[in-house]
Amino acid sequence: MSEGYFIEDLAEGMSASFAKTITEADITLFVGISGDTNPLHIDEDYAKATRFGSRIAHGMLSAGLISAVLGTRLPGPGAIYMSQTMRFRAPVRPGDTVKATATVTVIDRAKKRVTLACEAHVGATLVLDGEAMVMVPSRAAPPAGS
Amino acid sequence: MSEGYFIEDLAEGMSASFAKTITEADITLFVGISGDTNPLHIDEDYAKATRFGSRIAHGMLSAGLISAVLGTRLPGPGAIYMSQTMRFRAPVRPGDTVKATATVTVIDRAKKRVTLACEAHVGATLVLDGEAMVMVPSRAAPPAGS
Amino acid sequence: MSEGYFIEDLAEGMSASFAKTITEADITLFVGISGDTNPLHIDEDYAKATRFGSRIAHGMLSAGLISAVLGTRLPGPGAIYMSQTMRFRAPVRPGDTVKATATVTVIDRAKKRVTLACEAHVGATLVLDGEAMVMVPSRAAPPAGS
Amino acid sequence: MSEGYFIEDLAEGMSASFAKTITEADITLFVGISGDTNPLHIDEDYAKATRFGSRIAHGMLSAGLISAVLGTRLPGPGAIYMSQTMRFRAPVRPGDTVKATATVTVIDRAKKRVTLACEAHVGATLVLDGEAMVMVPSRAAPPAGS
Repeated sequence: MSEGYFIEDLAEGMSASFAKTITEADITLFVGISGDTNPLHIDEDYAKATRFGSRIAHGMLSAGLISAVLGTRLPGPGAIYMSQTMRFRAPVRPGDTVKATATVTVIDRAKKRVTLACEAHVGATLVLDGEAMVMVPSRAAPPAGS
Repeated sequence: MSEGYFIEDLAEGMSASFAKTITEADITLFVGISGDTNPLHIDEDYAKATRFGSRIAHGMLSAGLISAVLGTRLPGPGAIYMSQTMRFRAPVRPGDTVKATATVTVIDRAKKRVTLACEAHVGATLVLDGEAMVMVPSRAAPPAGS
Repeated sequence: MSEGYFIEDLAEGMSASFAKTITEADITLFVGISGDTNPLHIDEDYAKATRFGSRIAHGMLSAGLISAVLGTRLPGPGAIYMSQTMRFRAPVRPGDTVKATATVTVIDRAKKRVTLACEAHVGATLVLDGEAMVMVPSRAAPPAGS
Repeated sequence: MSEGYFIEDLAEGMSASFAKTITEADITLFVGISGDTNPLHIDEDYAKATRFGSRIAHGMLSAGLISAVLGTRLPGPGAIYMSQTMRFRAPVRPGDTVKATATVTVIDRAKKRVTLACEAHVGATLVLDGEAMVMVPSRAAPPAGS
C-alpha cells in the first residue's frame, strides 16, 4: 500500500528536492492555521524598522517544504516522521522561491530508521538546514494494515 | 519597537501557551502552502489502512503552534528564531485541540540567546516536544534599527 | 459604468439578501486576514467552557455578508460605503447558514445618501442587526470618471 | 479561564493596538469568505475609472483589525462583543499597513459593559473610526462555566 520507498530500496546519498515560491497568500494562510501573528510577518511598518528591513515569511513555511520532500518523495508515503531539527539561517521574503532538499545520510535497517540531511535554499543562499529521522516500512515485514 | 520581552526581563521557568483546534481546513490549507500531499494527511482510504486508522494532521501544524507561542507570547515580537528541534510523539487528528507550551530553560545573557523547552499536547497526550533557541533583544543594546 | 442602482432608481422598502454557510475554513481564513486569534473562535477546549459551549464564528464574518449585500446587490457597485452600525445578537457556529438582508429605509436625494436597515439571520434567529449608510451615484450627475 | 482583562482591571484611557499590512491575498480571501464581489475590490479596470483610481480593500477588512484588538488585547479573551459602529473615512489599498487602536472610554461596572473608541489609521490618515461595546467578565461574579 505504501507508495514510497521501502527501507531495502534506500541507499546513502540518495537525494530529492521540492521547490515552491512563497507568496503573500502563503503567509496569510499560515497565520490562519498557526495563529502566529508575529508582526515581523504581517506588519510592514514594524518589519521595515527591524534588521530584516521588510516582512519575512515564517520559518515554519520553509520547514513545511522539508515535510513535503519527506512525505511525498524521499522516502515518501509510508514513512513515519519521527523527528526534525532545523536551524533558520537566513530570512525568506514574499516572492522568494525556496528549494528544499533531503539526502539520506544514515540507514539503520535493524530499527528501520533513516536519517536525512535537510536543507532549504533561496537561489544560492542557505535559509534552513537540519536533520530528519523517519521510520520506513520494510518489504520483509510491512506494517500491519499495509 | 519590540513588543515582546527583553532578555533582561526573562527568567528561567517562565512559560506561555497557545492553543488551537486543528480542523480539516487547516490540513487543506497546509497542503496548499507547503505542497505536502502525503496521502496520510489527505486520503482517507489510504490512511485507514495504516497504523493510524484515519487521516492525521501534518506534524508541522503542531510545530506552527510552537512558532505562535514564541513569536507572539514568549519571548514575543522582537525575538529572532534561530533553531528548533522537535520529536513527533503521537498523531493529531482533525478536531483535536493542540495546546503548545514553551518554557524558558537557559538564558545566555552574554550572547542574548534563550533556550525554551517546547511541548504540544492534545488533552493529556504529548504529541510533540523539542527545544527552541531564540535571540532576544537587550534593553542595554537594542538591535540596530529598533 | 456603475453596475448598481442609481439613486433615482431606489425606493424605500426595497430589499435584497445574500446567504452563505459559515464553515471552519471561513474561520481559519478570517483569522489569517484579521489576526483575530481570540480562543473563542479557534480553541474548542476553551470555547466549550464558556457560555457558548463551542467555538463560534467571528461577528465580523456575518458583517461581511452585510457588506456583500450592499456591495453587490442593493445598491450594488458604484455605491460608496460610508458607515455601518451592528449589534451582535446571537452566536453563529460553524455549519450555520447566515442570511443577510438590507432594506432601504431613508433616501436623501439632495446628499445622494441612502440608509438601509441590515439584519442577519440563522434560520429564524436574528444574529446581527444594524444600519448602513451609503452614497449612491445619480443619473443626473454621475461621479467623475464614471 | 478568561485570558483577558476583568472589568475590575480596566480603567478609562487604557489603549491597545494591532497592525497588519493588507495584501492582495487578504482581499481575495475576504471575497471568498464573505461573497463580497464588489468590482471596486476585485476589478482593476472598473476601479481605475472610479474616484479611487485603483482597487481598494473591503472596509470590513479594517473592521477585522478592530475585532482583533478587542478579541486578543483589550479587553481580550473572555469579553463578549455586543456592538460596533464604524465610519469608513478613507480608502485602504493593497500594500497599506493598517493600525487599529481601541481606547476605553466608559466603564459601566454595574452592567459589566465597556465602551471603547476605535480607530484605524494608514500612516497619519484616519481610515475608520467608531465605537465598540463589549461585556467583560467580573472577578466578583465570573460568567457561568468559566
